[in-house]
Amino acid sequence: MAKIGILLSGCGVKDGSEIHEAVLTMLALDRLGVERLCLAPNVAQSDVVNHFTGESASASRNVLVESARIARGEISDLAKVSASDMDALILPGGFGAAKNLCDFAVAGVRTEVYPEVSRLLWEMHEAKKPIGAICIAPVVIARVFGGLRPKVTIGNDLATAKILESFGAQHQECPVDDIVVDQENRLVTTPAYMLGPGLREIASGIEKLVHQIVAMAA
Amino acid sequence: MAKIGILLSGCGVKDGSEIHEAVLTMLALDRLGVERLCLAPNVAQSDVVNHFTGESASASRNVLVESARIARGEISDLAKVSASDMDALILPGGFGAAKNLCDFAVAGVRTEVYPEVSRLLWEMHEAKKPIGAICIAPVVIARVFGGLRPKVTIGNDLATAKILESFGAQHQECPVDDIVVDQENRLVTTPAYMLGPGLREIASGIEKLVHQIVAMAA
Repeated sequence: MAKIGILLSGCGVKDGSEIHEAVLTMLALDRLGVERLCLAPNVAQSDVVNHFTGESASASRNVLVESARIARGEISDLAKVSASDMDALILPGGFGAAKNLCDFAVAGVRTEVYPEVSRLLWEMHEAKKPIGAICIAPVVIARVFGGLRPKVTIGNDLATAKILESFGAQHQECPVDDIVVDQENRLVTTPAYMLGPGLREIASGIEKLVHQIVAMAA
Repeated sequence: MAKIGILLSGCGVKDGSEIHEAVLTMLALDRLGVERLCLAPNVAQSDVVNHFTGESASASRNVLVESARIARGEISDLAKVSASDMDALILPGGFGAAKNLCDFAVAGVRTEVYPEVSRLLWEMHEAKKPIGAICIAPVVIARVFGGLRPKVTIGNDLATAKILESFGAQHQECPVDDIVVDQENRLVTTPAYMLGPGLREIASGIEKLVHQIVAMAA
């Protein structure tokens, strides 16, 4: 039976993992009877945002500790996990992917992906294990694998797509209920809340992504 | 078109709303094309639990602000909402229901439901609008409506069921993928993570609850 990693980046769309995307990923995996392995970097969050007001809060929170809320405590420190622990890896979206897995949210074309994240992604690639990325998370794989000319989608946001292309990626427009598959690089992406509008539409795209990832991992 | 309230109690199973239960409730509503109105009390959380270690943390957090993470910022202060704003109300589970909507987690048979929560529940009852409760949240409606002899389930946990009966409720055992309907009092309950074991099973029960609530609200 396959075991699929889910790389979380906090808990909440504005400073962590997008909660709906993460839960719908878990639901789709569970419905296929596939085991999950949640993981997150054990580092301070880039920032904390009050999700009621939308304003920045002065608090400090830890990415692994907050991600554990979505995972109900069943989560591992990214630093202790390697590609040999899983058959595929999925990155849900949310600003956490652009703030806590890399610095895209502030650095744009100069984005650097944080070393532990980059390390696991290269291990997955070298083991020919598939990687899925949802919503804004394709920026992470576009930056890491830019030299391989990866084919990815973040929906139809042309400004963001241009930055992905500056990394070397090939951006492909895609509706919310569909996926883009890069067979050569074993990557699958779907726009989710980059397009919205709601849970049922993002669930369709995420289900397709999960089915494709599980099929490729088999 | 119906509008269904979702009363949240924070963000995370150990000190707030159970995230999977809340998101699956939203998904089921969205798939029926039903609008949602998320709300939460604007009060300090009873406590903050580190979900990675399971230990109590010294931090202080606000229930409305943390609930806004699940609601993606689209949420109202419970104090500003009345039964006239919605056609039905659903309470997801998580320890937040037993800590931030009432004091069940510490008070047991002496449970008091917090006034704003009790106020909205009585308004719903008087307007004959249905109320759903998931997982441990039936303790709240059992305590408020005990005098009406409400029929509810929290799965098969006999110790907790005994406390519900001390409030006046009639407890009915129920599997995770099913619901208990109290037609007279217009209440619907499902055990979800009181029984588990995973997302696909709790999704079945929550979908049934949402369908039943929407049918009763029509």
